[in-house]
Amino acid sequence: MSRPDGRSPAEPRPVEIVPHFHRNAEGSVLYRAGGTVVLCTASIDTVVPPWMAGKGKGWLTAEYQMHPRASRARREAREGRGKSPSGRTQEIQRLIGRALRSAIDLDAIGERTIVIDCDVLEADGGTRTASITGGFVAAALALAKLRAADQIAPVLRDQVAAISVGHVDGEAILDLVYVEDSQARVDLNVVGTARGSIVEVQATAEGEAIERRDLDGMIDIGLVGVAKLVAMQRSVLASAGVELASLFQAGRFS
Amino acid sequence: MSRPDGRSPAEPRPVEIVPHFHRNAEGSVLYRAGGTVVLCTASIDTVVPPWMAGKGKGWLTAEYQMHPRASRARREAREGRGKSPSGRTQEIQRLIGRALRSAIDLDAIGERTIVIDCDVLEADGGTRTASITGGFVAAALALAKLRAADQIAPVLRDQVAAISVGHVDGEAILDLVYVEDSQARVDLNVVGTARGSIVEVQATAEGEAIERRDLDGMIDIGLVGVAKLVAMQRSVLASAGVELASLFQAGRFS
Amino acid sequence: MSRPDGRSPAEPRPVEIVPHFHRNAEGSVLYRAGGTVVLCTASIDTVVPPWMAGKGKGWLTAEYQMHPRASRARREAREGRGKSPSGRTQEIQRLIGRALRSAIDLDAIGERTIVIDCDVLEADGGTRTASITGGFVAAALALAKLRAADQIAPVLRDQVAAISVGHVDGEAILDLVYVEDSQARVDLNVVGTARGSIVEVQATAEGEAIERRDLDGMIDIGLVGVAKLVAMQRSVLASAGVELASLFQAGRFS
Amino acid sequence: MSRPDGRSPAEPRPVEIVPHFHRNAEGSVLYRAGGTVVLCTASIDTVVPPWMAGKGKGWLTAEYQMHPRASRARREAREGRGKSPSGRTQEIQRLIGRALRSAIDLDAIGERTIVIDCDVLEADGGTRTASITGGFVAAALALAKLRAADQIAPVLRDQVAAISVGHVDGEAILDLVYVEDSQARVDLNVVGTARGSIVEVQATAEGEAIERRDLDGMIDIGLVGVAKLVAMQRSVLASAGVELASLFQAGRFS
Amino acid sequence: MSRPDGRSPAEPRPVEIVPHFHRNAEGSVLYRAGGTVVLCTASIDTVVPPWMAGKGKGWLTAEYQMHPRASRARREAREGRGKSPSGRTQEIQRLIGRALRSAIDLDAIGERTIVIDCDVLEADGGTRTASITGGFVAAALALAKLRAADQIAPVLRDQVAAISVGHVDGEAILDLVYVEDSQARVDLNVVGTARGSIVEVQATAEGEAIERRDLDGMIDIGLVGVAKLVAMQRSVLASAGVELASLFQAGRFS
Amino acid sequence: MSRPDGRSPAEPRPVEIVPHFHRNAEGSVLYRAGGTVVLCTASIDTVVPPWMAGKGKGWLTAEYQMHPRASRARREAREGRGKSPSGRTQEIQRLIGRALRSAIDLDAIGERTIVIDCDVLEADGGTRTASITGGFVAAALALAKLRAADQIAPVLRDQVAAISVGHVDGEAILDLVYVEDSQARVDLNVVGTARGSIVEVQATAEGEAIERRDLDGMIDIGLVGVAKLVAMQRSVLASAGVELASLFQAGRFS
Repeated sequence: MSRPDGRSPAEPRPVEIVPHFHRNAEGSVLYRAGGTVVLCTASIDTVVPPWMAGKGKGWLTAEYQMHPRASRARREAREGRGKSPSGRTQEIQRLIGRALRSAIDLDAIGERTIVIDCDVLEADGGTRTASITGGFVAAALALAKLRAADQIAPVLRDQVAAISVGHVDGEAILDLVYVEDSQARVDLNVVGTARGSIVEVQATAEGEAIERRDLDGMIDIGLVGVAKLVAMQRSVLASAGVELASLFQAGRFS
Repeated sequence: MSRPDGRSPAEPRPVEIVPHFHRNAEGSVLYRAGGTVVLCTASIDTVVPPWMAGKGKGWLTAEYQMHPRASRARREAREGRGKSPSGRTQEIQRLIGRALRSAIDLDAIGERTIVIDCDVLEADGGTRTASITGGFVAAALALAKLRAADQIAPVLRDQVAAISVGHVDGEAILDLVYVEDSQARVDLNVVGTARGSIVEVQATAEGEAIERRDLDGMIDIGLVGVAKLVAMQRSVLASAGVELASLFQAGRFS
Repeated sequence: MSRPDGRSPAEPRPVEIVPHFHRNAEGSVLYRAGGTVVLCTASIDTVVPPWMAGKGKGWLTAEYQMHPRASRARREAREGRGKSPSGRTQEIQRLIGRALRSAIDLDAIGERTIVIDCDVLEADGGTRTASITGGFVAAALALAKLRAADQIAPVLRDQVAAISVGHVDGEAILDLVYVEDSQARVDLNVVGTARGSIVEVQATAEGEAIERRDLDGMIDIGLVGVAKLVAMQRSVLASAGVELASLFQAGRFS
Repeated sequence: MSRPDGRSPAEPRPVEIVPHFHRNAEGSVLYRAGGTVVLCTASIDTVVPPWMAGKGKGWLTAEYQMHPRASRARREAREGRGKSPSGRTQEIQRLIGRALRSAIDLDAIGERTIVIDCDVLEADGGTRTASITGGFVAAALALAKLRAADQIAPVLRDQVAAISVGHVDGEAILDLVYVEDSQARVDLNVVGTARGSIVEVQATAEGEAIERRDLDGMIDIGLVGVAKLVAMQRSVLASAGVELASLFQAGRFS
Repeated sequence: MSRPDGRSPAEPRPVEIVPHFHRNAEGSVLYRAGGTVVLCTASIDTVVPPWMAGKGKGWLTAEYQMHPRASRARREAREGRGKSPSGRTQEIQRLIGRALRSAIDLDAIGERTIVIDCDVLEADGGTRTASITGGFVAAALALAKLRAADQIAPVLRDQVAAISVGHVDGEAILDLVYVEDSQARVDLNVVGTARGSIVEVQATAEGEAIERRDLDGMIDIGLVGVAKLVAMQRSVLASAGVELASLFQAGRFS
Repeated sequence: MSRPDGRSPAEPRPVEIVPHFHRNAEGSVLYRAGGTVVLCTASIDTVVPPWMAGKGKGWLTAEYQMHPRASRARREAREGRGKSPSGRTQEIQRLIGRALRSAIDLDAIGERTIVIDCDVLEADGGTRTASITGGFVAAALALAKLRAADQIAPVLRDQVAAISVGHVDGEAILDLVYVEDSQARVDLNVVGTARGSIVEVQATAEGEAIERRDLDGMIDIGLVGVAKLVAMQRSVLASAGVELASLFQAGRFS
């Protein structure tokens, strides 16, 4: 099977991460993976939702929105204008939030809320996993700023990244572009950590069910992809002057 | 570890399925698994959504709604009154729809829409998996009625059921009640088929990430639970006079 | 004139009331009158709406919702999803609330709110009157539970039930099924008490106006129907171990 | 019992009806009954709702809205801005629509829709009955314009008016002002015709139930009030050059 | 160029202002300019929006709504029922609010909110400028009532009025009716004061851009119109017993 | 008076325009003016709104949205999620649409819709004028693509740009940053053309009215600013390979 952009089955797309793209947010990146571009900003505020007030703990939540011209083909209606975000959007932003909350000890950041805004400027598959991978870097940049100002102790407990895997024509392939995604018999998203463990797996057989051994193979290839992205995140943060280890709680960095 | 209701780790709750509970829907069951009760109805109509019209194919969609007093503790506001269903509800009804669509060859039912309504009357964990397992029986009852009237050919390609698995205190346990669910470190839902393959896996580490081998163990136990439910579905359908094999496409029944 | 189900003009449909159908609500019944089935639950909570707080008084309110497949003919859109309940639904739940408030001395229940949820599972005419008649039994079961726990004094001041009356082909008929309702020239709902007095009368001439004497005749027949339902309520409560008289304020039981 | 404005129990408030107050609508009146002022307009358009198209019949519907400063005490939020009209408003406009539809043979007006807009500029009780009584005059003015242009045949089959009755301190009183309304034990609205028959009766015991004979007495007094309003309507229409009899179908005028 | 109603280019429409038309509001006028009729009410309440509380200052806001039959041609849907006011309506009520706030020293009225409701009963062009001109008189009547009761000091700092100007067939014309408005190449609204200065200018070239000198000419003619309206306002207030000068802060009246 | 960033009164902020920033839209720029950053995309589709269909003419509309972290201070709620855009947003996008429609002969582009999306990523004053100035370049890039493909004839009739002017401490200043804007006594936005004529002027005195001569001075300085932006637009387009003159209708380029 040949892929539209000539990649081998387990090869992720080239990724470019521009840190500090947005000047007002505490942390931000412009995340490009092939034809997918997501602006991830991390805003930190010293308030928490009403149901958390007075407990001394923090919270992290995410919002995800497609730019109306994210698709190459044509403009779509601006989402959520005058109505609630679609089920798909809500599902995605709940996933991003869970994934990033697993990486941070929110009990240790005080009564602060971190909001990760993921604005998909261009979409060519893998926008939810790009949001998680880019969102982690934006969050780390924002936490580094608080850490540098001595406002928080080290609070990271994991480094997370995410990638998609598909099963097309009997073969597992990594990091699908849009046309591959629409042909895939099974669609899987893996959120994993720098130490190789799993935060979330969502596997969906669009048509027929999948054999257990095929699922296992897809998870394997996904974790290989996560490992590459984790290295990429670390290198971008280093180039932006952030030593990731210094943000980790004792004994958690790997 | 002892479970609140004394079950062993891999033991599902007792299930009771009352077929034809609702007299107007083409198919229906009242599905009880312990303290969880879901009224599943399958309505079949000879229309399809506008975007599908004229293609000669059918569609299946699901709606899920909690009764305001589903919780033992207290009444909640009636969901979706004057606002869109919550993100959780939309996520669940999208899952139910995908799971049941995988079981039916919708290209073969003509321009018909099957709507599965899952009204959770009482909730004690596992409402989404109960909706899928009960929803399959409701759909089969409705399809059997059409088949008996010779309006459709056999259209089933799989028999699906779903169950939850949790990881609590280092151990995988099957079919969580509400208090177990709130303590689980990892929460997994498996949708599987009578032949042991997988339609959907959703695994979420609420706090810390999970090791790959623990995830594998959870999927194992989940598939054991699915096998038990599949047998249960078959026996209830038989007692209601429906021979499941007769609804399957050639070579698909197992 | 012969009725579709062979009843005589002043004969109500057979009624079946299953107490405690819903296990979580403080009180509940599954109410069946012919082809109409309503799940009535009474939930009691120790809060009151903000505008009543601090006055030491209670409140009762009702919600009414049609199951999307309540109609025999076909599924309707699930009401109130993403928009407000229809005018008809609001009118009905306001009526149910008024009717049941008249039966209970809310000043005597303390700062508690009773919510009566009336979910119409199947509809064949008379759903609003079934909701009132069944709702009274659910409320009485819930109040009996509080009374047994010595949390309230006797608070009932009336026993209420409701029934519909129509004027079809020049004759008053009791407890209309759907096809009769759609032919009726005049439609009347009576909410009455065990002592024969009137809580609410709503008479509507769909087309031509009605003579005063015909209206009087319709009210007469309605009160006969109410008397039968009141007896039925009392017998169901007794069989569920609730002595209605013990819930009444002094001198109010009849 | 003495009334706040010194009226005797069965005496309605002075009514002033200004025809043609609104210059664009086909028919309109400014209706004043004491401190209640309603602008009623009747607009006739040659379209019908989609579900009626092609049947050659007409439709009438009503909208009711309170001006934000209708109350003497203080300004209320403008109703329905960004949300649906309240249950009370919907109930009222459904009532107005039913009442006026009973007066007109809509099958005889062709594919036209009559919309009665009732904007309550000042409110001191009885706004719904004022809307019906004034709405009838507005509708008659509009129909007279069509009749004069020979676009319709005579289409009226009844002349309707409405008034409220209350039961305060053991006595039935007619046409309640706001402070009386809030003290009334029973609240009744009667919509009646020129020939003394009844279009709608809505009687509600706010607290305790009412005896049958008291209800009968309230209906009696209400019909006396309707008779006075009917005469008033006729005289205003005559002064505006409309001979009501000429709008009635053969044998229907009385 | 001849105008539809025979006016000369710089001649405004005849204006009629009925003070105290609405009896409940603290101030009100029915404002008629040709075929445009607006009911302006000024309600004063002793509360301020939450974000202003405790500062000892007041606020003024405006609401604008078209009656569904404001247009001569046909009834439009009642605006804002179940949805937000249109962009046009919001733009207009923001303009009315800004214009009237410029006239009043809100720091001097204490913690009060003045709400100007502008209900357009009939529309033939110039509804937003009529709302401002009439709204000023309603506000002055309300402030005079507070002043008479010695509840406020003099608080006016300007007298404002507004009028439209168009550029049709190469000529500037004042106070456009609807048909002129739809032909105008440029549309301008001027809000000005009694002393000839400018509160707001909004000039919009609907098609082609306009030369600077033409814009200047349009502003000139607009200020002439404002001067005439300002005199009219003063005379109506005087006839209603309000001496405008007495409401002005020292040295501000002209 | 000294300005926060040291500019002279009539000096605009440095502008940077990155063409083709967004790869999917037919035309796009990332527009930076000091601390204000707007992503402008122009999408062209071969459909028109229903009310324009079949007339052979085109349409242009604009959407404007603030990124939730556009403000330096803190994150705001994402606008329009589950509710309509604010009055301010609607006012702005109506302005952008009018301004750009005046530049293009929409009758000449066939049945196409041009949508200009203006996403304000960072906001420091002048976001609406930046949207217009950047939006024109995005539109020109998109039209150049159609022109190059010979799908349209030359359709431009004007080149438009916009800038803000304020009156602070008695002096007119150009292109206000946020802190200047909040101090300005008068706020003016000018939309002008390459030939020096005016498309739109919106002048608002926030507090006291302004003298006519001061308004004239503000318009003067605004037109000077427009001239500088127009030159900037032309140079960016040229560097992107677009000769602006070739897009203009005969005799319209200047």
